[in-house]
Amino acid sequence: MNVLFTFPLKDELKQPLIERFPELNFTFSPIEDATVERASVIVTYGEDITEETLERAKQLQWIMVASAGVDKMPMKEMKKRKIPMANVSGIHKTPMAEAVLAHLLAQARALPTIYERQQKKEWNKKIHSTELRGKTALILGPGAIGQEIGRLLQAFGVQTIGCNYSGEKRPYMDNTISFKQLDDHIHEADFFISVVPSTKETRGMITKDHFKKMKETAYFLNFGRGDLVKEQDIVWALENKEVARVILDVYEEEPLPKTSPLWSLEGCTVSPHVSSFSGKYLERSMPIIEENLSRYLQGRNDFVNKIDLTKEY
Amino acid sequence: MNVLFTFPLKDELKQPLIERFPELNFTFSPIEDATVERASVIVTYGEDITEETLERAKQLQWIMVASAGVDKMPMKEMKKRKIPMANVSGIHKTPMAEAVLAHLLAQARALPTIYERQQKKEWNKKIHSTELRGKTALILGPGAIGQEIGRLLQAFGVQTIGCNYSGEKRPYMDNTISFKQLDDHIHEADFFISVVPSTKETRGMITKDHFKKMKETAYFLNFGRGDLVKEQDIVWALENKEVARVILDVYEEEPLPKTSPLWSLEGCTVSPHVSSFSGKYLERSMPIIEENLSRYLQGRNDFVNKIDLTKEY
Repeated sequence: MNVLFTFPLKDELKQPLIERFPELNFTFSPIEDATVERASVIVTYGEDITEETLERAKQLQWIMVASAGVDKMPMKEMKKRKIPMANVSGIHKTPMAEAVLAHLLAQARALPTIYERQQKKEWNKKIHSTELRGKTALILGPGAIGQEIGRLLQAFGVQTIGCNYSGEKRPYMDNTISFKQLDDHIHEADFFISVVPSTKETRGMITKDHFKKMKETAYFLNFGRGDLVKEQDIVWALENKEVARVILDVYEEEPLPKTSPLWSLEGCTVSPHVSSFSGKYLERSMPIIEENLSRYLQGRNDFVNKIDLTKEY
Repeated sequence: MNVLFTFPLKDELKQPLIERFPELNFTFSPIEDATVERASVIVTYGEDITEETLERAKQLQWIMVASAGVDKMPMKEMKKRKIPMANVSGIHKTPMAEAVLAHLLAQARALPTIYERQQKKEWNKKIHSTELRGKTALILGPGAIGQEIGRLLQAFGVQTIGCNYSGEKRPYMDNTISFKQLDDHIHEADFFISVVPSTKETRGMITKDHFKKMKETAYFLNFGRGDLVKEQDIVWALENKEVARVILDVYEEEPLPKTSPLWSLEGCTVSPHVSSFSGKYLERSMPIIEENLSRYLQGRNDFVNKIDLTKEY
């Protein structure tokens, strides 16, 4: 059986894989007709699979996405052909949560000002620094990543409000509210942090009205998916000082076009969709990929992190 | 009895103080002959008291330092005249620990690079980011501030080694070693973080030899006192890549002179001694000051945070 990795693997990860599964024939190469046609399993970062790919992949029985987001996948065709899919959800929680905390603390402790003054060799102790302690964070999407953010924020003495579809209680959240209750609680947040995936419920979920209800001193962070909110609404919120700071890792259009006002608007931090990165990405993905390959060889399809094709995450 | 504050207080802090102690006569003004001569108690940030001040302060019975460091105080004269002294040690732990975590996370998550690229409107996902998780921190001075740093680092999955004079176990330290054992453990540290006060044991404690023993990938942070290590030795360590990064909040000479190479050396972050700042400084100091005034009026001298004049902290 042929397993196609559409991305390269370092030798120290590739060799143990090949040795563990002698019955599988691994290919590591970008999507091409011939390899796709032979593949029973495709392992992909989830951004290179089109409807056309699926049409050509006549042998395909299962797709493993080595990423948390599956929103670039051709979902309609996947559903139609009922191709099971799994991802590596959960492995991003450490770098993502550390990135969110890094950005929050950097702002609270005025690091951008400190860095700028150093470049000018300016010793100036007049600085606006604050603390996280005693603040309130609203975490949109208290899943694996959101909970890790909540756990760390609680250690800093920050109150956490989780917000998910059902409103069901989640760990590391002092309180959990449903999507429908968001309007009534958004004014409580000093930090509004979104890590929700892109689904039919979350696309376009945040609008001007939400920014109007936020504290003027609030930080708005989007580390989930760019289609949560229109860029023009973020620009409007910044121009009208509806919030004090916007910190973005994801955008409606990626790469963020040079012409976007977000690059230079006061109060806006632009991070180029890198918050899930750290040297540990693939070494944490491989155990999940290997476990799923092993289940596949046993004829099972109860994959770890199997995607619910109706919920899209 | 006259109490001289050598710094101003906002009305919302001043009024409750005056109302609570009607028997005390408060003056708020910089050190001047007349006010000093009358003062039974001086409340100071600890940088404006000279031997001359003490000579003039014939009525002086007690000094309250609204700061953690007392190294600018004329200790010889204080000892000679046996004037009791207390400080507000402990109130800095939240902003200090948040500042240390902010700097560590900012480097780990490559925020300086992200900020620089934003200024150039450059979308570039090639970034060297790492995680705190799994690293080891050596905390020189595991007192109130050091323990708060340790507590937060442990939440991030960082191993903590405390290093103090006695080697006695301290909270939030996975291991505690003595000053004498430092040489044998310094190579274990990914993060070397000093928050020790300036005392006869710590002045000049860190030398070139220590930098040689540190990991090349280590971060060296000094957030305690600048006389821990000679500036020329830090410059040498950076030039010879003995450590990957130096993050300083304190210096041998403050303000750091424009001519110092530290401002522009690669791998060096210069923070202008602001890590203890946050809007909460005085509101956290007042309860300690008031408790000590209250004990003083009862004729007690077992002050909260009383300084041991022989240990100098």
